[in-house]
Amino acid sequence: MNIGIIGLGLIGGSMAKAIKESTSHKVYGYDILESTVLAAQLTKSVDGILDTETLRECDIVIVSLYPQATVDYVVSNASVFKKDCVVIDCSGVKRSVCTKLESVAQKNGFTFIGGHPMAGTQFWGFDYSRSSLFKGASMILTPHSTDIAVLEKVKELFIAIGFADITFTTPEEHDRIIAYTSQLAHVVSNAYVKSPTALDRKGFSAGSYKDMTRVAKLNENMWTELFLENRDYLAEEIDLLIKNLSQYKNALENNDEAELRKLLKDGRDTKKQAG
Amino acid sequence: MNIGIIGLGLIGGSMAKAIKESTSHKVYGYDILESTVLAAQLTKSVDGILDTETLRECDIVIVSLYPQATVDYVVSNASVFKKDCVVIDCSGVKRSVCTKLESVAQKNGFTFIGGHPMAGTQFWGFDYSRSSLFKGASMILTPHSTDIAVLEKVKELFIAIGFADITFTTPEEHDRIIAYTSQLAHVVSNAYVKSPTALDRKGFSAGSYKDMTRVAKLNENMWTELFLENRDYLAEEIDLLIKNLSQYKNALENNDEAELRKLLKDGRDTKKQAG
Repeated sequence: MNIGIIGLGLIGGSMAKAIKESTSHKVYGYDILESTVLAAQLTKSVDGILDTETLRECDIVIVSLYPQATVDYVVSNASVFKKDCVVIDCSGVKRSVCTKLESVAQKNGFTFIGGHPMAGTQFWGFDYSRSSLFKGASMILTPHSTDIAVLEKVKELFIAIGFADITFTTPEEHDRIIAYTSQLAHVVSNAYVKSPTALDRKGFSAGSYKDMTRVAKLNENMWTELFLENRDYLAEEIDLLIKNLSQYKNALENNDEAELRKLLKDGRDTKKQAG
Repeated sequence: MNIGIIGLGLIGGSMAKAIKESTSHKVYGYDILESTVLAAQLTKSVDGILDTETLRECDIVIVSLYPQATVDYVVSNASVFKKDCVVIDCSGVKRSVCTKLESVAQKNGFTFIGGHPMAGTQFWGFDYSRSSLFKGASMILTPHSTDIAVLEKVKELFIAIGFADITFTTPEEHDRIIAYTSQLAHVVSNAYVKSPTALDRKGFSAGSYKDMTRVAKLNENMWTELFLENRDYLAEEIDLLIKNLSQYKNALENNDEAELRKLLKDGRDTKKQAG
């Protein structure tokens, strides 16, 4: 197959490298940064540049851009994709992207599937991309009356490049759960470092501080867009966490040993259950 | 030297194993669990059992118990320690322990130094102890008019068993900073899992959820005691985190892009500075 990848950052770059390493598909890639396109070519992460000509030849197109840029790209190339082309995006929110692009795809006769690879690091950009990024991870897909043979083809590709499993869900369900598992974690990490005590931490910290703040150094442009597109679910999760944290704070202020122990045991039991 | 270790859990057990592995000191150990004492003997983690007889011979005694049990143990053995014995505790709060034990030591002619090894895992008990636990970690000590030669001897021991450096501080400063670097992280982790969404997370989570909740499965008895002994500082840190989280929540609810981006960028910059 010919596979097009638009956006060669951490995710798109890793997709390109993984496909080149694990399959015999042809990869055409493009990035808005000229230096990234050059780096992708020099490292043989792509076979050629994705432009209007090569895009016409693509059987699968993976869009690894921010949400709004994803929508813009697919809309402006809606008439260029082959009729049996499958376009899959990788952005971190699905409701806003899928609602728009599913209808664009339907009107233009290609297939669109919302996607979100559950993999990443605290770094971003092509320099950090690697073929092993998806090893053991879950690939989320939100198919919408998609032909089963098409789904099989797509699934095969993602399993071939290292994903351990495919999670099928709806855009709504994706956004609800991702607000908690990923977005809230980034908010907490980013907020956690803001105590003035953070500056005195040298010599006083071990694993738990490191884990808690690993993703604090985030790309504020990308995350602002992701958070705002999902602000209903995310605000709800923050609110719930604040309520839960307040319970510990109250127990401490009341010097309430039984209540504090109960709160901690509840958390331990929940973690056991949730894994 | 003869080194006594009271409490052979994760920390005490690892101390015993590390001392046996890296030095030629003799180690006497004791734990309230008979099975642990037996395991320590069978794995040659100790040379013998720490009892009143062997305690009298110890040059250094490492107390690896919960705070109140630490105080109780040192008080009841105050007249047994040799006059030049150095007693070091490993409990996670220092003000309450040190205030009491520094005066007991002074009255009885031995030396007491508050200590807190900055190492641990989400597991506890002798079964998880290992000689490499302290590799690269910081050992916090709160000496109180301690002889410099004594401090050198103690420092040498901790460096020999793998610590990368010794952080000297006061009990007050220790408790203030540890409330943030360790205690708050445990509270947040334990509170984080309490969203009902946690139970739907399979297939929707990657590194950030895992990091955020790693220490949620904590020992509620130990942490209840540690938190209550440090409740002033810990409640203050929780309060500050709640205030910071509320800012993100408000920005989301107001759909305020500029404010949200600013909040995220501030967090990124602070993390860069704090490390």
